[in-house]
Amino acid sequence: MTIKEKSLKKHYEWKGKIETKVKAKLKTKEDLMLAYTPGVAEACLAIKNDVSLSYQLTGRGNTIAVITDGTAVLGLGDIGPEAGMPVMEGKAALFKRFGDVNVVPLCLKTKDTEEIIKTIKLLEGNFAGINLEDIAAPRCFEIEKRLVEELDIPVFHDDQHGTAIVVGAALINSLRLTKKKLQAINIVINGAGAAGIAIAKFLLHLGAKNLILVDRNGIISRDEPQSNKAKEEIALLTNHHLLKGILVEAIKGADVFIGVSVPNVLTKEMVESMAKDPIVFPLANPIPEIDPKLAKQGGAIIVGTGSNQYPNQINNALVFPGLFKGALAAGAKKITIEMMASASEAIAHYITDEKLTHDYIVPSVLNEEVHQKVSESVRITAIKQGIIRK
Amino acid sequence: MTIKEKSLKKHYEWKGKIETKVKAKLKTKEDLMLAYTPGVAEACLAIKNDVSLSYQLTGRGNTIAVITDGTAVLGLGDIGPEAGMPVMEGKAALFKRFGDVNVVPLCLKTKDTEEIIKTIKLLEGNFAGINLEDIAAPRCFEIEKRLVEELDIPVFHDDQHGTAIVVGAALINSLRLTKKKLQAINIVINGAGAAGIAIAKFLLHLGAKNLILVDRNGIISRDEPQSNKAKEEIALLTNHHLLKGILVEAIKGADVFIGVSVPNVLTKEMVESMAKDPIVFPLANPIPEIDPKLAKQGGAIIVGTGSNQYPNQINNALVFPGLFKGALAAGAKKITIEMMASASEAIAHYITDEKLTHDYIVPSVLNEEVHQKVSESVRITAIKQGIIRK
Repeated sequence: MTIKEKSLKKHYEWKGKIETKVKAKLKTKEDLMLAYTPGVAEACLAIKNDVSLSYQLTGRGNTIAVITDGTAVLGLGDIGPEAGMPVMEGKAALFKRFGDVNVVPLCLKTKDTEEIIKTIKLLEGNFAGINLEDIAAPRCFEIEKRLVEELDIPVFHDDQHGTAIVVGAALINSLRLTKKKLQAINIVINGAGAAGIAIAKFLLHLGAKNLILVDRNGIISRDEPQSNKAKEEIALLTNHHLLKGILVEAIKGADVFIGVSVPNVLTKEMVESMAKDPIVFPLANPIPEIDPKLAKQGGAIIVGTGSNQYPNQINNALVFPGLFKGALAAGAKKITIEMMASASEAIAHYITDEKLTHDYIVPSVLNEEVHQKVSESVRITAIKQGIIRK
Repeated sequence: MTIKEKSLKKHYEWKGKIETKVKAKLKTKEDLMLAYTPGVAEACLAIKNDVSLSYQLTGRGNTIAVITDGTAVLGLGDIGPEAGMPVMEGKAALFKRFGDVNVVPLCLKTKDTEEIIKTIKLLEGNFAGINLEDIAAPRCFEIEKRLVEELDIPVFHDDQHGTAIVVGAALINSLRLTKKKLQAINIVINGAGAAGIAIAKFLLHLGAKNLILVDRNGIISRDEPQSNKAKEEIALLTNHHLLKGILVEAIKGADVFIGVSVPNVLTKEMVESMAKDPIVFPLANPIPEIDPKLAKQGGAIIVGTGSNQYPNQINNALVFPGLFKGALAAGAKKITIEMMASASEAIAHYITDEKLTHDYIVPSVLNEEVHQKVSESVRITAIKQGIIRK
């Protein structure tokens, strides 16, 4: 049986990958009086008098929502809210398993930006954080921006920042191995959707100076019109020499290729045209921008993909459980770029110099200790920054 | 320590009475590939092609939402969405414990009827049912009516119908003991809010003919103006002799008093003025409309309250876990009044003639067998009626 067949069979067996677990004992009359009426009224009144107690007296403090509109699920595109649920449940399961964070997966039956924002605002009081998921660009930018401004709890679009953080970790470790400096290298990102733009911004924050984004219309350049505001913004921060052309021109002499686009757009010849010891992250999933073997043949010294069928799986599941766990533990009101950077550093430096190799630049998602390190690092950064609940 | 103090302490310890439990094993690389990417894509595509598979391939088929706007929580009134959560979590815990139904408790930060309806419509695809909870009258009537019409899953306002069903069961058994007929008796319901009106409608469905509702303005009569549509409707079905006055007039010669109002409004003298062998259900909680001892002194032959500190606790927790379990098991698209009646009958007839006494007219909420009987009865009725998913 293939993985696909086996997974479908398992989904029929599971009938949901998560369920409700009752923490309160409900065996005796008194148990009912404590957990339900009449005793429960005391907790209600305490929260009525001080809403911040909702974090202490209910599950809110350790519960987030994973919310999608079902418009950009995996590589499957706009498949609708119900069809997005298997991914949201999977994500919820990973959050709990690796971060001990409770999750309510919610798929919204609307693609309207304002309706999505409104709905999430009305739900705010139930959660300590919101993980936006698989919402198509450019709508996702506006939704995240507005919610970050208007909510008092962290809002995090994982497709953007989760990916950026783990790419950051992989790049930090690749540079440790190749002895190159982030400030000095040339980076090409193929794909200017949610992930591509977020990776660019994040690498700039980490210290990268020379970045070029390429999308299906070619190299993004600030002296040309862009199709949306997010691209206009990133155009101002990248491609300082106003290079024109398509990927084949952009890639010449580059130190790093990061693909968040479509299968097989990077050729062996393009890798050959890169700088010495090129680093190649073809992250399109399940079929990467270039077959890792071909990339190596072209001279790539380090290759990382989105798949676990090759070494160096660059997977945002390394990030989100620990990131939210840390943010929640700190009582964070935002997830700042500094918290994200600390998550990147925690993932990268989990691998010691002795263990770091060209085929081991990121730890396994199954490694529980990494998630713990991410969580601690994010928690400490959040507290240092002080953007936390009183 | 009082129950109140103990309950508050427990709430600080629990930090949430429910949590997320992961059903899918997540130990190996392959586990991740089956529960998450890349395998999960198959379940997504299957649902995309046939949305009804969301009931098979995700937790939807056994998951409901318990939704409030926090405006009529317990007897506490409008305490806001966050302060409503301890009750919603308690309810979720009871649903899981006694019905094995998974629950997402959601408190909405709006009191606007249209916003509440809209939000729940956008969330429909996640759930197999909606339990509306603690929403103030008369808004709750419009919200429930519209959602029942516009959604394809059962919508049930527990404060109305859950209460009506358990009162129905208690009354059926009281009449078994007193050898009176529902068709022949006079019933007075004090309180014409959500619960009072729902009890009236439900008892009429069960066969009651002579009902009078009383609210703070006195006896409800169809030849006088009513403050909302729900009262206008019920006025047409009750008080056929157009009696006027207040409770003291209404109660004279009545066989049954049902209170869903405020503490201590029924006096011993009023009970004395009732028909032979009066049945008195003062359900205001925690302080009933009359102290049960006083009611007995006034001649009440059977007394049931909302509290577990007296015999005969008439608690809708006897209803909702089994009712939803049965509806979900049948794939019901509505919860019909016939399904509700079957729940009432199941609760009542769980107690055999031999066991039935004046102090044991309803089983204990802790009795797992009752919930199972309710579930089976509702499931069979739903299937007979055929208002179920294909």
